[in-house]
Amino acid sequence: MFEGRLPATDERDRFIASLAPLRGLPEEVRAVLPAIATAGPSFNPLAGLRTALSLLAAVRSLPPLWDADPVRRKADAMLVCALTPTILAALYRLREGQEPLEPRADLTAAANWLYMVTGAEPSAVQAAAIEHYLVATVDHGFNASTFTARVIASTGADVVSAIAGAIGAFSGPLHGGAPDRALASLDEIGTPERIDAWVREKVSAGDRIMGFGHAIYRTEDPRSLMLRDIARGMGGDLVDFATTVEQRNVDVLAELKPGRNLYANVEFYAGVVMELCGLPRPMFTPTFTVSRVIGWSANILEQSTDPKIIRPIATYVGPQPPAPIP
Amino acid sequence: MFEGRLPATDERDRFIASLAPLRGLPEEVRAVLPAIATAGPSFNPLAGLRTALSLLAAVRSLPPLWDADPVRRKADAMLVCALTPTILAALYRLREGQEPLEPRADLTAAANWLYMVTGAEPSAVQAAAIEHYLVATVDHGFNASTFTARVIASTGADVVSAIAGAIGAFSGPLHGGAPDRALASLDEIGTPERIDAWVREKVSAGDRIMGFGHAIYRTEDPRSLMLRDIARGMGGDLVDFATTVEQRNVDVLAELKPGRNLYANVEFYAGVVMELCGLPRPMFTPTFTVSRVIGWSANILEQSTDPKIIRPIATYVGPQPPAPIP
Repeated sequence: MFEGRLPATDERDRFIASLAPLRGLPEEVRAVLPAIATAGPSFNPLAGLRTALSLLAAVRSLPPLWDADPVRRKADAMLVCALTPTILAALYRLREGQEPLEPRADLTAAANWLYMVTGAEPSAVQAAAIEHYLVATVDHGFNASTFTARVIASTGADVVSAIAGAIGAFSGPLHGGAPDRALASLDEIGTPERIDAWVREKVSAGDRIMGFGHAIYRTEDPRSLMLRDIARGMGGDLVDFATTVEQRNVDVLAELKPGRNLYANVEFYAGVVMELCGLPRPMFTPTFTVSRVIGWSANILEQSTDPKIIRPIATYVGPQPPAPIP
Repeated sequence: MFEGRLPATDERDRFIASLAPLRGLPEEVRAVLPAIATAGPSFNPLAGLRTALSLLAAVRSLPPLWDADPVRRKADAMLVCALTPTILAALYRLREGQEPLEPRADLTAAANWLYMVTGAEPSAVQAAAIEHYLVATVDHGFNASTFTARVIASTGADVVSAIAGAIGAFSGPLHGGAPDRALASLDEIGTPERIDAWVREKVSAGDRIMGFGHAIYRTEDPRSLMLRDIARGMGGDLVDFATTVEQRNVDVLAELKPGRNLYANVEFYAGVVMELCGLPRPMFTPTFTVSRVIGWSANILEQSTDPKIIRPIATYVGPQPPAPIP
C-alpha cells in the first residue's frame, strides 16, 4: 500500500516480517496508558489512541514530513500503523482491569489483533473474517478523516500530526464509523415481528437508521456484500436475524423514502462479523481504526511527495459588522 | 469572538471574568505534564499541548459537537482556550527544570501569559505589545490549521478533536507560524554590512528567506506594519537592526525576484516584539498558538451550527493498476 501497488509475494513477506518487531509498546507510552485508560468516567479508545501517539511524537521529536527523507517518512508511518492495534488493545484491557498482552509475532496482523483484545487465540475462520474486514476498509477515497490527514500533511507536519487529526475526524458521529451502533439496533429490535414497527417509528421520529445509507453510495455497498457473505459463512442465529432485519429495513425504507436507495452499509454486517469474532463492542470502532490508519498513512505519504499547502479561499457571506464601538 | 460580533464593555468584562477561573491546570493533566515535557531529547511544545488536551478529552469524555448543545460547545471551547497558555507555559518551565506557575487572575490574558512563562510580571508596555500581537493574529481566513479544524468539526466530533488536528497543521513548516525563524536569521546576519551578501546567498541557494513573503498577501502584511510600529515604540538596537534588514531584504528581493512582491510577513516583527517582551525563543510559536486557538475555536463553533460533513470528491489520475497477481 505504501508503494502505490500490490506487492510481489516475497515483498509482502518481507513487509510483514518488518512490521512485527514494531508492534511492542515503547516504554514512554506504556507508562501513561493506565492514566489514559482508567481516569475517566467512560472509555474513549480513539481519544486514548490519539493521546498515546501524540505523546510518542512529543518525546521522540518526530521530524516534519517536509524535512524527512522518504525512508524516514515511511518508517514513521509503519511505526504508527504497527503500534495502533497494540495501543488500542492495551487501553481496552487496562480499562477492564487486566494487564495488556504482548503482541505475538507468530500470528497474522488480524489474528494478533483479536488475541491482544480478547486474550484468546482466534479460530482460523475468525482470523480470516477479520482480515477480510480489515483489508476491505483500509481506504475509501477522500472521506473526512483521510482528507484531514492530507490537509495536515500538506503543511509538511510530521506523520503523527496528520494521524492525530484523522483520528479526531474519524471520531465524529457524521463520519459513520460505528459498527456497534448497527448491532445495538439489532438488540433494540429484538425479534423479527418487531422489525417493521421499529423502522417506521424511527423514520417518523426523523431518526437515522444506523447501518443503512451512505454519503456516497446510492446502491448496495460492495463491502457490505462481502461482509454479508462472510457472516453467512459463519452462520448462526445472529446472522439469520441480521439477514431478516436487512431485508425488511430495505423494503420499508424503499416504501417510506422512495428514491433514496437506502441499503445496508459497511457498518451493518461489520458489526455482526465482529460480534462473531468475539470482539467486545467498545472495540468495534477501534477495529475499524486499526485498518483505516494504514489508509491514512498511505495518503499522507502520497501527499508528502508534493508539498503544496492546502488552504482554500473562503468568501465571507455573513452580516456586515456594525459600526465600531467608540 | 464566539458570538460573531464585538462585545459591549460589560459583556467583555463578564467574558474576561469567566475565563480566569478556567485557567488552572486540571489534576489529571498536571500529573502527566512532566513526562510530556522532559522525556524526549528536544522540547516539542505543540506536540505536548496536543497530548495534554487530548488526554483531557479522553478522561473527561467530551461530548461530540453534534450532540452537545450550544452552551456546552462554547464551554468546552472556552476551557481549551483558557488552558492552552497554562499548559504551554507549564511545559516550558518543566523542561527548564522549574515548577509551573499558577495563573494569576489579577493579570490580563497577555500579562498572565508573559508572567507564567518568564516568572516575572511584565511591564505595561510589554503586556500591551503582546496583547496587540495576540489580537492581530487570532484568526486569518481559511489557513490550513483553521480549515483542518473545520473539516474535523464538520464530522460532529468534539472540540478537542478539531483543535488537536489544527495544532498538527499549525506545526507544519509550510504553515509559516515560526516567529523564531525570522529572529534566527537576524542572528545569522549579525551586522548590517553582511545583509546583502546573506540575502543573495540564500536566494541563489534556493532557500526561503524566513519572515518574508506570504501565501496570500502580495503587498505589505497589515499585521506586520502594526508590529513594526509597536517594535519601534519599544526601541533599541535590535529594532534598528531589524528595520535595516527589512529594508535591504525587500530591495534585494525585488531585484532578484522581480514581480514577486516579497515583503516582511507577520513573523518578522513578531519575533522582534516577543524578544523585547522577554519571551524565550522556544515559546515564540507557542505564543502564536495562544492567540490562534481562539480563532480555531470560533471557526469550530461556527462550523458546528451547520453540521454537514466536508468530504471532497477526488478524481484518480495515477497509473492504472497492473493485472492482479494470480
